[in-house]
Amino acid sequence: MRKQNRVKTMQAVILKDRRVSVEEVPMPSVEEGEALIRVSKAGICNTDLEMIKGYMDFEGIIGHEFVGRVVETPVKDWIGKRVVGEINISCHKCEMCQAGYPKHCSSRRVLGIQGKEGVFAEFMTLPLSNLHSLPSEISDVEAVFVEPLAAALEILDQVQIRKEHEVLVLGDGKLGLLIAQVIRTQTPDVFCVGHHPRKLALLQRRGIRTCLKNCDRDQKFDMIVEATGNPKGISEALNRIKPRGKIVVKSTFYGQSGIDISRMVINEIQLIGSRCGPFEKALDFLKNKLIDVRDMVDGDYPLEEAQEALELAKRTKTIKVFLTP
Amino acid sequence: MRKQNRVKTMQAVILKDRRVSVEEVPMPSVEEGEALIRVSKAGICNTDLEMIKGYMDFEGIIGHEFVGRVVETPVKDWIGKRVVGEINISCHKCEMCQAGYPKHCSSRRVLGIQGKEGVFAEFMTLPLSNLHSLPSEISDVEAVFVEPLAAALEILDQVQIRKEHEVLVLGDGKLGLLIAQVIRTQTPDVFCVGHHPRKLALLQRRGIRTCLKNCDRDQKFDMIVEATGNPKGISEALNRIKPRGKIVVKSTFYGQSGIDISRMVINEIQLIGSRCGPFEKALDFLKNKLIDVRDMVDGDYPLEEAQEALELAKRTKTIKVFLTP
Repeated sequence: MRKQNRVKTMQAVILKDRRVSVEEVPMPSVEEGEALIRVSKAGICNTDLEMIKGYMDFEGIIGHEFVGRVVETPVKDWIGKRVVGEINISCHKCEMCQAGYPKHCSSRRVLGIQGKEGVFAEFMTLPLSNLHSLPSEISDVEAVFVEPLAAALEILDQVQIRKEHEVLVLGDGKLGLLIAQVIRTQTPDVFCVGHHPRKLALLQRRGIRTCLKNCDRDQKFDMIVEATGNPKGISEALNRIKPRGKIVVKSTFYGQSGIDISRMVINEIQLIGSRCGPFEKALDFLKNKLIDVRDMVDGDYPLEEAQEALELAKRTKTIKVFLTP
Repeated sequence: MRKQNRVKTMQAVILKDRRVSVEEVPMPSVEEGEALIRVSKAGICNTDLEMIKGYMDFEGIIGHEFVGRVVETPVKDWIGKRVVGEINISCHKCEMCQAGYPKHCSSRRVLGIQGKEGVFAEFMTLPLSNLHSLPSEISDVEAVFVEPLAAALEILDQVQIRKEHEVLVLGDGKLGLLIAQVIRTQTPDVFCVGHHPRKLALLQRRGIRTCLKNCDRDQKFDMIVEATGNPKGISEALNRIKPRGKIVVKSTFYGQSGIDISRMVINEIQLIGSRCGPFEKALDFLKNKLIDVRDMVDGDYPLEEAQEALELAKRTKTIKVFLTP
């Protein structure tokens, strides 16, 4: 096959030995069933920051939140399409895949996290079966939020939230702000406890009650979403949950968390681990303007300034930082 | 009202300052809506042993597993009835009671555990609404198992176990042995990991697969019931659960348990606290001989030998010890 006369290298953000650098690397090779995608915009997630600390032990191109355009693929209909992509690459054969949980595939690779180069680069590849074509109603900025919004929407697939439920969201980070908005579509009684007046103000403008730090200690909730990113978050949730209540756990971090198990048993509390979620629903929510991501982007940097972008993303006052190759 | 010419004191097992003694104490006063019950037989539970170590900070007559006969009550139909009794005494007015969870009543008292004198005594009292009349098919020995069996059956109300599920029971204590039998009624694939050949043999005779300590490390399970009574039990369960699996937690003990939360989140594991359960169903299971408590009683002592009985109950090889006033 005659090679096209195209660039053979590209710029990418590489993680190695817990250090990040911007390098010129070979273009990704496109495997069977995959598309080559030119990245239009990418988002920095807390997971990226945790990975730099050593989480997941990954080396290579990091990043998994993106919007891009398909530039090469055997299925011609896809070429030129504006796309987002699911991050779990599954075998579709193992027990978990067959049981309908491909994102729990026992031999999965995860975009920019585990066994698969990520999106902080000019180009990337993903299986066509992971891609979702974007409707024109969703902007590039909104599209970068599809992956974390899907993770927030996973909660609705795991627990039934009714309009009479009182729900507490612990944490006003990137994910907490999306989760509070998602839950607000199910019940008016959402309450977000955070540490940053500016972030909470953003929720207040969307009609969500908020509170700085340790307020209203006495109120107990039917359901709590723990998105603090802090090992102490679960204990805080156990303090504020009603008996028979459900705590959805979103935080991932190093090491162990001390939990008062007897209290969980006596009050018959459920702790529900929650990870990636449904892209279709996220696209639907954004298309129908049920989620508002305005004012959530604090910076948009070219790839060569990835270091500065990551530094900004690390600051606790920051919400979201973008990279534009 | 003229007092009957009856005994004004009785023998009882008293917990005070983490010490147990057998004493002559006043007969319990019968409050409105209550029945006075002569205790026929009582069972020593792990919770009693934990309470002696300081759990629940209770002082007074301990014990909550019993069978007895009603000797005094305003509702004459009950007099002479052979009964067992639910241990949570609820207000029937608070939010949790109104929501249909009286055992989570915010001002509940718990028989021999919290705010209510227990059953290691000649006489005891309970509200009539807590009592269940025993059918003749259930012996006194079986009846003492109604309360822990109900706790085991609570699991069936919390998770749906289907016949294709592979379920692991961690722990071969009193409760673990009942739980394994309960789960065996739902699926043939029950597996109990314990530390005592004699206890496991008892399950083997009932057609349940068992394993001593750390066998078959590779097999993963759809569901795990953690009944080890040990802070390390949850970590062991997290090692052996499939993604999206459910861990029902039965252990209560002092202090905190270290849990790898990220693993729980990534694999979307559910931890489900589980406490007291449905007496009706326990009576039904015993009446229909679905649960076999033979060979589970290691000793039956008069009240005055409660110290010896408790010493025997503490030994890890012991299954169940009874007290007969």
